[in-house]
Amino acid sequence: MQACASESHDTQEQLSDKDREFMHQAYELALKGYNEGGCPIGAILVDEDGTVLGAGHNALVQEGNPIIHGEMAAMRDAGRLDSRRKTTMYTSLSPCMMCAGTIVQFKIGRVVVGDVVNSPGNVEFLREKGVTVDILNYEPCIDLVKKFREEKPELWLEDWGGA
Amino acid sequence: MQACASESHDTQEQLSDKDREFMHQAYELALKGYNEGGCPIGAILVDEDGTVLGAGHNALVQEGNPIIHGEMAAMRDAGRLDSRRKTTMYTSLSPCMMCAGTIVQFKIGRVVVGDVVNSPGNVEFLREKGVTVDILNYEPCIDLVKKFREEKPELWLEDWGGA
Repeated sequence: MQACASESHDTQEQLSDKDREFMHQAYELALKGYNEGGCPIGAILVDEDGTVLGAGHNALVQEGNPIIHGEMAAMRDAGRLDSRRKTTMYTSLSPCMMCAGTIVQFKIGRVVVGDVVNSPGNVEFLREKGVTVDILNYEPCIDLVKKFREEKPELWLEDWGGA
Repeated sequence: MQACASESHDTQEQLSDKDREFMHQAYELALKGYNEGGCPIGAILVDEDGTVLGAGHNALVQEGNPIIHGEMAAMRDAGRLDSRRKTTMYTSLSPCMMCAGTIVQFKIGRVVVGDVVNSPGNVEFLREKGVTVDILNYEPCIDLVKKFREEKPELWLEDWGGA
């Protein structure tokens, strides 16, 4: 945990106002999912010029579909693309192994993570695979998942892969 | 490639008629996808008692959705489950990094792969994470993807993550 904390501190200095703005949008998607009774994780895929290519939130409950984590919803929404190398994935929670594998397979160049507290995610895995990972530590994202985990621990477990 | 060939030979001896039957079903799903103009990869998620929990094929073309590889289609079709530890994923082609990550995240106990020739996939990654991987080397799966790659190399590239 200490390594994460120091890492995120270093990284935060490199983040722009635009990064914080997109992370806030990812948080708002997470909040929408939470208000629908679902898991509060949202994500946005953004092109190098700042165009939003895709956005979405976890839909395990809403669609009864376990593969629709936030990042996967953004991937689905963005649809078919020739290349994602110059895109950035903003995700309110550090990617699980499915989402980290997806980011690597589809060659997404950069990931900005809003929360490594509720899950350390796969930050090192992504970096080893050549993905740039910046950690924002956005308090609203962290607080929302913390609240959700306290309220619905079984749903959190199911969403994170089951027993 | 030699390591794969020897590995798959060893593994094939442990495969049952039931395994071959499910792999043939995965192949038929792959063929259905191919006949629709899509990428020919199919998968089936089966419970320990032989019940098919979910089945599907790649739907990049059909749904314009890059995350629906064969294994992901089977996961989506199976829907919400408390645990997947005792399930087996039969997949006509060795899992890409997205699908391998999904198998690990959702704690699928075993994977049977029909083709490691067109893609070596992530067999070692899966084994390191504790997943049992058996390689069937089912000729119809191998031949179908080989034909597809020759016919539509750009679609193969796009499906496998893009440029």
